[in-house]
Amino acid sequence: MTFGLARRQVRPSVPLRPGEGARNRLTSLEGLAALSLDALSSVAYGPEAIVVVLVAAGTGALTATLPITLVIVGLLAVLVVSYSQVIAVHPDGGGAYAVAKKDLGPRVSLLAAASLVVDYVLTVAVSLAAGAASLASAFPALAPYSLEVCLGGLAVLTALNLRGIAESARALMLPAAVFVVSVLGVVVVGLVRSGPVAAVGGSMTFPAMEALGVLLLLKAFSAGCSALTGVEAIANAVPGFRTPRVRRAQRTELMLGALLGAMLLGLSLLIRRDHVAPREGVTVLAQLTAGAYGTGWGYYATNIAVTLVLGLAANTSFGGLPVLMSLLARDNRLPHLFGLRAERPVYRYGVVALALLAALLLIAVDAETQRLIPLFAIGVFIGFTISQTGLVRHWLTTRRSGRIPRALLNGLGAVLTSAAGLVLLTTKFLEGAWVVVVAVPLLMLLFARVQRYYTAVGEELGLGRVPGPPGRTDSLVIVPLGEVSALARRALTAALALGDEVVAVAVHSDPERARALQNAWARWDPGVRLDIIDSPHRSLVPPIVAYVRRVARDGRQVAVLIAEVEPRHRRYRILQNQRGILLATVLRARTDVVVCLLPYRIDL
Amino acid sequence: MTFGLARRQVRPSVPLRPGEGARNRLTSLEGLAALSLDALSSVAYGPEAIVVVLVAAGTGALTATLPITLVIVGLLAVLVVSYSQVIAVHPDGGGAYAVAKKDLGPRVSLLAAASLVVDYVLTVAVSLAAGAASLASAFPALAPYSLEVCLGGLAVLTALNLRGIAESARALMLPAAVFVVSVLGVVVVGLVRSGPVAAVGGSMTFPAMEALGVLLLLKAFSAGCSALTGVEAIANAVPGFRTPRVRRAQRTELMLGALLGAMLLGLSLLIRRDHVAPREGVTVLAQLTAGAYGTGWGYYATNIAVTLVLGLAANTSFGGLPVLMSLLARDNRLPHLFGLRAERPVYRYGVVALALLAALLLIAVDAETQRLIPLFAIGVFIGFTISQTGLVRHWLTTRRSGRIPRALLNGLGAVLTSAAGLVLLTTKFLEGAWVVVVAVPLLMLLFARVQRYYTAVGEELGLGRVPGPPGRTDSLVIVPLGEVSALARRALTAALALGDEVVAVAVHSDPERARALQNAWARWDPGVRLDIIDSPHRSLVPPIVAYVRRVARDGRQVAVLIAEVEPRHRRYRILQNQRGILLATVLRARTDVVVCLLPYRIDL
Repeated sequence: MTFGLARRQVRPSVPLRPGEGARNRLTSLEGLAALSLDALSSVAYGPEAIVVVLVAAGTGALTATLPITLVIVGLLAVLVVSYSQVIAVHPDGGGAYAVAKKDLGPRVSLLAAASLVVDYVLTVAVSLAAGAASLASAFPALAPYSLEVCLGGLAVLTALNLRGIAESARALMLPAAVFVVSVLGVVVVGLVRSGPVAAVGGSMTFPAMEALGVLLLLKAFSAGCSALTGVEAIANAVPGFRTPRVRRAQRTELMLGALLGAMLLGLSLLIRRDHVAPREGVTVLAQLTAGAYGTGWGYYATNIAVTLVLGLAANTSFGGLPVLMSLLARDNRLPHLFGLRAERPVYRYGVVALALLAALLLIAVDAETQRLIPLFAIGVFIGFTISQTGLVRHWLTTRRSGRIPRALLNGLGAVLTSAAGLVLLTTKFLEGAWVVVVAVPLLMLLFARVQRYYTAVGEELGLGRVPGPPGRTDSLVIVPLGEVSALARRALTAALALGDEVVAVAVHSDPERARALQNAWARWDPGVRLDIIDSPHRSLVPPIVAYVRRVARDGRQVAVLIAEVEPRHRRYRILQNQRGILLATVLRARTDVVVCLLPYRIDL
Repeated sequence: MTFGLARRQVRPSVPLRPGEGARNRLTSLEGLAALSLDALSSVAYGPEAIVVVLVAAGTGALTATLPITLVIVGLLAVLVVSYSQVIAVHPDGGGAYAVAKKDLGPRVSLLAAASLVVDYVLTVAVSLAAGAASLASAFPALAPYSLEVCLGGLAVLTALNLRGIAESARALMLPAAVFVVSVLGVVVVGLVRSGPVAAVGGSMTFPAMEALGVLLLLKAFSAGCSALTGVEAIANAVPGFRTPRVRRAQRTELMLGALLGAMLLGLSLLIRRDHVAPREGVTVLAQLTAGAYGTGWGYYATNIAVTLVLGLAANTSFGGLPVLMSLLARDNRLPHLFGLRAERPVYRYGVVALALLAALLLIAVDAETQRLIPLFAIGVFIGFTISQTGLVRHWLTTRRSGRIPRALLNGLGAVLTSAAGLVLLTTKFLEGAWVVVVAVPLLMLLFARVQRYYTAVGEELGLGRVPGPPGRTDSLVIVPLGEVSALARRALTAALALGDEVVAVAVHSDPERARALQNAWARWDPGVRLDIIDSPHRSLVPPIVAYVRRVARDGRQVAVLIAEVEPRHRRYRILQNQRGILLATVLRARTDVVVCLLPYRIDL
């Protein structure tokens, strides 16, 4: 065969995996199950967050829950319509990061990326914490172990995602349906029934600590905005829909808006009518459930469905963040390893990073939902604002008819979401939002520094320039050996195939053994020189490194070929291989030679 | 240069390290400091162990302390004389394991090795626990943190030993001297003074739970035998002495015996005269110290010296066990990695193994000396018995004059130590000695299984037979590349030097990028074929592995050369290298090709 410029397209034989083929794309309903659990499940903590804030002004202040929820639902309506336009304009999905990169420049895209990272991590933490609270409502014995329940759930999610068993839309439809039906059932049954609320949990007393002023109302609003997280998920995943994908995705977005709005309004109506206040050991949603279904099996089933859906909502972050991190890695803004998929189609480093960050966060707040709420949603609202602003810019640069009303609608969305974001930030600042204010710029700085490094590497490697032709030199292959054996024969065979000159080298501390090896070598006579290095300290690696350095000075390409026994059984690995790996590691750190590793498999 | 059978002795330029040169060998006094701390420091827990057992029969039973100590000192005398003979017969040292391997066959040597391993680990645990107790006697605030103090001390010892800062005999002489002088001072001052004992610690009441029967006396004796551990250390280390090494080592052994005997006897005399019983929060030795010196600075200084010497005694195990493990590794009875020294002359795997085992043990008994004592000394007495028995055998096979009295003396030693060992085992069985009875055979089994594995590997490799001549084949070097760059040029240069044929291979999921690469390649024209593999899933490793497997079928030696950017700063490592390491790992696991790693250093 001659060297030449033949180029072939080689097709790998790896089959397509489930979820990657065209047949597996989503219908509208499947899309609802796959992409809206994050948003829908937030009814489990959104109304509760409002109630917990308002009760600081006494139980009488809880009447403000309904008007606050009305404002939030109004904001939801604007968001849903705006995101229907995002879907039409960005049918390739990609979310706030992609939109910002295209329409708003690199700096804004860094802001979008940082706030998305923060929010994905928070989604995992909040969902797990709320799920644990819901589980503890049904099984009070679990209440003292919220953190353990959360970390256990996190471990399960991480393991599943590392194994590449991501959510399948069809598998999610059942819990999603049970959840939606249960919660809507709570609303309907609760509004129809007029009896007293079944008492679950321990009663608490709430002295009026604060007056019900504007600030408290704003705080309650911003806490309730946590119910709006996840509304953007559908727009990020338009390519996952079946054709006509834009219409299907828009329909899913509208369904999500209608369902979420109905659940939020219904629950707050119930809260108002039944004067629901926080009770010890149960969630607000659990109280409403007990009010509607009593404390029988309906109560348990609903709580378990809520727990399950919250767990699955946490899982959507595992779908989202690793992909975002791989995009950042491809843009040189995160270490390239986040863009690696090994043999499973899983960004394992991203999955592990998400799990670690969420675990740290859960431990820091001891798995209390209410301590996470102040951090939550700020990132989402940054993303909302960026998406809307990008779209306004898009409409202003296009010449399509109807661009002015569209720009106005997205502009309204941008103004409302940025206003809400500012309210969130200012009212929650001291309670934890400052963490986000610190974390987001730090993440942006990290992305920027990583990018600077990769740019510098590209310079050093002369990317984009045509390098000189490769050099032509002779080669010397050094083969460290311990004794004359089949392993030595295999190593010399490989070395002779690779090197223009081959030399074997052995280290011995014992002159007697050295002599024995020389004699065995002479009897074998493999046609290769053997150098024996004396090492009175029984050390193996430093003498070989010194030897390699000495002979590596003559301009030839030097390679060290390390043959190592590889037992078939894993349990024997510890009995083998260490010497070679040690030598290879030190040679790579201390010399510029090529280190060649040759496995010699034995049947043990 | 021609291939030929030239063999050279190459001297490495690595200088001798301290402690390895002839000039650094030990005098008798230095030997006492370096090798007897383990034995001498046992006065800090030996007498206490007797008292703690006897007090179960009420404080009146404590009068038995003195006769029990007399028996133990008698046993000590026999051991010291016997070990003087061991030193003469085995001037190369090596301890019970070496003696057993030479004189008593492989099975007994496994027993010796297993019991030595158990005892080295126990020495570390007991010394640290006793040291923490001594420290807590001086600083009662530390009492609740014994485990933390022990683990902290263990961490320091491990770190020092991993860095190769082993004990230097001269550095040990000062604390050893302070310790010996302090303790002998306690004895002398205490016996001279006749005032009441200064009260330290809280008083405890001791109802007579048991009658002072033979069993309790035997129990107290066996607990006190923990004071005899470490007597064998000098005989194990004869090669470390300056010439005439046998005479010097014997002299050290006698000095050790005299000092240890004097301290044990003196302390038990004091215990008897002052009716010392255990008190809350202080050790028996601390009580005696307070009795002699009062509770001023002399008390603190002595306690701190005791703590220090106990810590240093734990350190002697770090000198001994890793060496024993390396001997076992050389005999194929432990994984060879325990025989590895990296760049420092330290058996790091042995050090780490010792630290882990000792930490587990300390955690299991919550750092309480009295819970460790029942496990302790059994291994030592097995070693004693094996050494003496081996020597009897040696005398019986030699023809030297005076062999009969010598054999009788060692025979007496063997009988006494085996009897004492049996007493230890039976009296302490339920209190913890069963752990040793389980651990020792398990260790022996482990050694035997490891040895069987290495023997089988030797068979497979045809060790000892002359293999066929190495084969002669052509080679194909595959170079995975991402883009045209200086890195690609360097990789092709190395590959062309090594391979008869070279082919570059690139994986791309994006057809546009693939075309761009093809064009850049054509412009560069390096004289090497480029194959582009299509990977729609963005995965990198599986397509390359499949490609390598496909081309590796034609009988040529195939190598895959992976060039990786190596940034100068450690902090950038995470930004680089991962892809290549991943590919190398999978190729080594899944294929038989040679994997070549080429570092490309950049100044970042």
